[in-house]
Amino acid sequence: MPSNLQTTDVAIIGAGPVGLFAIFECGMLKMRCHVVDSLDVIGGQCAALYPEKPIYDIPGYPRVMAQELIDRLTEQAAPFEPVYHLGQQVTALSQSETGRWRLTTAKGTEIDAAAVIIAAGCGAFGPNRPPLTGIEDYEGTSVHYLVQRREDFRGKRIVIAGGGDSAVDWALSLAELAEKIHVVHRRPKFRAAPESIDRLHRLAESEKLDLVIPYQLAGLQGSGGQLTAVEVADLEGHKKALPADVLLPFFGLSMNLGPIADWGLNLDHQHITVEPATSETSAKGIFAVGDIAVYPGKLKLILSGFSEAAMAAHAIRPLVYPDEALHWEYSTTRGVPQSAQS
Amino acid sequence: MPSNLQTTDVAIIGAGPVGLFAIFECGMLKMRCHVVDSLDVIGGQCAALYPEKPIYDIPGYPRVMAQELIDRLTEQAAPFEPVYHLGQQVTALSQSETGRWRLTTAKGTEIDAAAVIIAAGCGAFGPNRPPLTGIEDYEGTSVHYLVQRREDFRGKRIVIAGGGDSAVDWALSLAELAEKIHVVHRRPKFRAAPESIDRLHRLAESEKLDLVIPYQLAGLQGSGGQLTAVEVADLEGHKKALPADVLLPFFGLSMNLGPIADWGLNLDHQHITVEPATSETSAKGIFAVGDIAVYPGKLKLILSGFSEAAMAAHAIRPLVYPDEALHWEYSTTRGVPQSAQS
Repeated sequence: MPSNLQTTDVAIIGAGPVGLFAIFECGMLKMRCHVVDSLDVIGGQCAALYPEKPIYDIPGYPRVMAQELIDRLTEQAAPFEPVYHLGQQVTALSQSETGRWRLTTAKGTEIDAAAVIIAAGCGAFGPNRPPLTGIEDYEGTSVHYLVQRREDFRGKRIVIAGGGDSAVDWALSLAELAEKIHVVHRRPKFRAAPESIDRLHRLAESEKLDLVIPYQLAGLQGSGGQLTAVEVADLEGHKKALPADVLLPFFGLSMNLGPIADWGLNLDHQHITVEPATSETSAKGIFAVGDIAVYPGKLKLILSGFSEAAMAAHAIRPLVYPDEALHWEYSTTRGVPQSAQS
Repeated sequence: MPSNLQTTDVAIIGAGPVGLFAIFECGMLKMRCHVVDSLDVIGGQCAALYPEKPIYDIPGYPRVMAQELIDRLTEQAAPFEPVYHLGQQVTALSQSETGRWRLTTAKGTEIDAAAVIIAAGCGAFGPNRPPLTGIEDYEGTSVHYLVQRREDFRGKRIVIAGGGDSAVDWALSLAELAEKIHVVHRRPKFRAAPESIDRLHRLAESEKLDLVIPYQLAGLQGSGGQLTAVEVADLEGHKKALPADVLLPFFGLSMNLGPIADWGLNLDHQHITVEPATSETSAKGIFAVGDIAVYPGKLKLILSGFSEAAMAAHAIRPLVYPDEALHWEYSTTRGVPQSAQS
């Protein structure tokens, strides 16, 4: 038996908001969880893609920043002492003769669990990269596919590429603190909220922001990971160079289920079909919740994932405690234990 | 046509947490709501029965007081300008030939709506009252069936009657500020958390609190709505009087669906059966969400009701806008309108 084998009640794949709440729901039913995520941080897309973006439809939060929601959910899960395995994708899933499940990650971690909750959102995801020679030399220093901290861009000369919401919204937002912004889009029109597009055009009348349309990215100038200019070309191929410290390409994300697609679960257009009463997949003991799960009437809302996580936890409980009737109580009656160690 | 007829998109019965969130979900889909509740206040049981009790299982809230949750949900619903009709039970529901629904309340308010969401919790509810002659003369002044503000009981001589969670928890809590507490229970044993019962017995070793067991309530002494003593009797009928300013009987609640039971909806043990994909009842255009709704796998959790409210709103949208395809967007993309007036 490998030395890095971990044994637990429930293995959760995905540490986004729904995976985090699944820890809490399992914990309230006295089940321990290990959580695996391919990202290096807790929080899934909320933390990695839009930590500073407000969310308006979390019940009881008229407005909450994505990262704050993650922080609160992490705090809510903490009394149940989850074990996080970050920066590692789950690569294999197999069932033992006893019916328990074994997960293996890309880093060689093995987790043995009575049940698995897949809360993997859209699967492993990454940005669509523009096809520019040598772009990888600038990634993380001068080229960024997401804005984690606005402040990092204060006083910078920024080229934003793309024509959708992210490009428009970040152009408006970063214009408040950048030295200069160029927005490069290969079409003359933007696809974003009409009001935001209006604001963009008004801002383009100032020195602060230039619209470079219709143009596309053509090359990078710089050295040692530090950009000095971004080359762009018009539709006839005429090039010019925009002086720049930073390039932010917003060309959307590519998502893929990765190894999950190979586990023999019933799928429907890259989503996992589940039983709505339990969130159980076509494999006994494997549950799917959140954006990756689909059933009649499914809404892709974080709050729907919370409810699915609760249903999954209740359905899993008899798998972990097969001989015990559940004496279940409302949280208002007993509260949360100081520690799940018992 | 009566002058107090109100026309709206959606009529919501019940202003508890799930009814409040239904306003928000309908609002995000550009549907206006009128909300009817038999209580005088917004918030349902959370506000009326346990405003100062903490809840631990609202996603993103490691701990939140029931009243605070209601306040935040009310704030979240406010931009959509709901119209509240409080202190009036819905007494009748009928369908017009066009398929729209007409609600009538006990105060004569009539609401015409494309759809109805029943978010009525356990139905209209009230405390079980002890059968003491003249008790109604003291209710609201010296006799209370719930604690809305602990501070009101500072320095008081309190008789608490009952043997369950509420009796035990409030005895422990009010002992911190009362002059004296008697806990009257007709059985020698209490039904509450073992740790709380231990604390109760330890407290009973002090002057602060006396356990009067096994005894039951036998009468009230006082005048002008002001108690001076509570009479109790043991199992053989021997009476004694406990000096008291306040009596708190905690004998549970009686719930009943009231008129809802007569609307021809499919019921299952005082709950309304719904289609899980939409939360629609057996009547087209009538939806049920939250504790009153039942379907396979149903969990009576506030968070489950939130999810059901979202599903109901999405299912109602084509009833309100029959000719319009839904261009639906995430709240993170657009946010909430400053006003739903448009």
